[in-house]
Amino acid sequence: MKPYSRLAYQTIKVAALAGGVGGAKLVVGLANCLPPENLSVIVNTGDDFTHFGLRICPDLDSVMYALGDLQDPTRGWGLAGDTNQVLQALRTLGAPDWFQLGDKDLATHLERTRCLAEGLSLTETTLHLCARLGIRASVLPMSDDPAPTFILTRDGRKLAFQEYFVREHFEPEVAEIDLEAAGRAKPTRKVMDALMEADLVVLCPSNPWVSIDPILRVAGLRDLVQEKPVVAVSPLIQGKAVKGPAAKMFAELGIEPAALQVLAHYGNLVSAFVLDELDALSVQNSELKDIILYSTNTLMQCAQHKFRLADEVLRLGLLVLNQSEKHD
Amino acid sequence: MKPYSRLAYQTIKVAALAGGVGGAKLVVGLANCLPPENLSVIVNTGDDFTHFGLRICPDLDSVMYALGDLQDPTRGWGLAGDTNQVLQALRTLGAPDWFQLGDKDLATHLERTRCLAEGLSLTETTLHLCARLGIRASVLPMSDDPAPTFILTRDGRKLAFQEYFVREHFEPEVAEIDLEAAGRAKPTRKVMDALMEADLVVLCPSNPWVSIDPILRVAGLRDLVQEKPVVAVSPLIQGKAVKGPAAKMFAELGIEPAALQVLAHYGNLVSAFVLDELDALSVQNSELKDIILYSTNTLMQCAQHKFRLADEVLRLGLLVLNQSEKHD
Repeated sequence: MKPYSRLAYQTIKVAALAGGVGGAKLVVGLANCLPPENLSVIVNTGDDFTHFGLRICPDLDSVMYALGDLQDPTRGWGLAGDTNQVLQALRTLGAPDWFQLGDKDLATHLERTRCLAEGLSLTETTLHLCARLGIRASVLPMSDDPAPTFILTRDGRKLAFQEYFVREHFEPEVAEIDLEAAGRAKPTRKVMDALMEADLVVLCPSNPWVSIDPILRVAGLRDLVQEKPVVAVSPLIQGKAVKGPAAKMFAELGIEPAALQVLAHYGNLVSAFVLDELDALSVQNSELKDIILYSTNTLMQCAQHKFRLADEVLRLGLLVLNQSEKHD
Repeated sequence: MKPYSRLAYQTIKVAALAGGVGGAKLVVGLANCLPPENLSVIVNTGDDFTHFGLRICPDLDSVMYALGDLQDPTRGWGLAGDTNQVLQALRTLGAPDWFQLGDKDLATHLERTRCLAEGLSLTETTLHLCARLGIRASVLPMSDDPAPTFILTRDGRKLAFQEYFVREHFEPEVAEIDLEAAGRAKPTRKVMDALMEADLVVLCPSNPWVSIDPILRVAGLRDLVQEKPVVAVSPLIQGKAVKGPAAKMFAELGIEPAALQVLAHYGNLVSAFVLDELDALSVQNSELKDIILYSTNTLMQCAQHKFRLADEVLRLGLLVLNQSEKHD
């Protein structure tokens, strides 16, 4: 599938919906394929929380750090070459140390908290941080309203996402994912504009339940996405998440952890679905006949992988786009 | 003047009123002279402010760090051996860097902010931090209510104290010191108990206008102090503050920067006044006849100086105490 050249897709406007680490990898690829003015990244803020009085936005940080080529290459989160002076001192004080606060990373949280306290919106604050970090693509929080995702556990607790994910190492069994706050959140003008102006929407390989769904739950955003050609990329390879709790979560929610189920979850929202070539056979008999299935190597282990996958996603997007224009 | 042995004053209860660096030095001396259960330090919180969303209490920190023998010995503030990883990263982000936030120091601000957000009072939070830092004397914020001191400048601005002091290097001319918030603040039970139980009150060599006065302005505290034998120590030596803006501030407020004026400012609140031996002559003709004047070397440059001055202050306090008992 190489019917479209890079030149062909460089003129289209793309809105990518992304969560944390996996999503951020494809975003980096997209940023390397597209001119910055044609890429908007709409980021999940359901994982955001307040810790030590600071506003921490894990997914925004993952996307920003990845786009700024600042992320720690081995851990997959946090900043390269960061130190832990503050965290060590917090330990001396007996303070909670379950959330890794690198020193440089802390500066991001501090500056974000300062800007918000001065009355800037989260969107304005993120643009300010991006400008300082030299990021030219548009990184947009899904909402300026707080929209925390909660995990309701089988043992009856209601955990903020990072408490579940980091503090408890996603060990508790998930009974339900509570996206009510996202449902009450208003979208921002910039997110709505990005979606309305987009020629193509990409659902990055992030956890559909806790990274992409919160974005789609924000009032009106699902409808705006629905109107566009959408390419989704599966975050699962052979039933496993590259990182994070997606597969374990699926199993606990009674869903087979498989690319096919990701596809079924998105359903007719998507026009094309990219899955790993190792999973290609398993979805051949999908009942979603109208959706183009595209298999390739989706594991992004280096910059070249990210670029190649993004390039394929965009070529596929062009195909979908041209088909939908024919139908119009 | 050595009429009283150390044993004699070790059984009395002392409440010391202190601001930042100068006050903290004498507090360390007092802590070395007295058993911890007999020393309460009531600390100015007029300098407290919120920076990057964190609650910063410069005077509480100075006193805690001094008592924990953790303070930077050369700068006089902050922690020994601290690093600046976060501050450097903040500079990269173009964030305000006028307030030195050392990495270890940041941990104190983070943990304090976390405790306050969890519903602990500033008093409880301070006791928690002191316990973690191994400080056994009782360190008490003057109030749990916010009581910010503002500096009204001649050019018509209203600056929070740390903005005036640190950000603007106490360069603006002072028109007025606004202690209204302290006047509205409620004292804590612990501060009232400490003053009521005290046999002796010590006004440490801190700036009378912006460090000691805010404490005395908190509702009821001046009256409680007034009932006790009080020894004050001048923060000025030969018309100069060892550190900070006291002398410059005095001049701008039309007050001669001199120990005599400090004495005049405290007036009949104090029973005895300790001034530097270099200033002894200048106050011999004081009109405050009932106040015992005591001159000694008040410059505290090492642990021994702190101990010696505290020892002299306590011996003087015993003298005052015994005199007042005779009068009763």
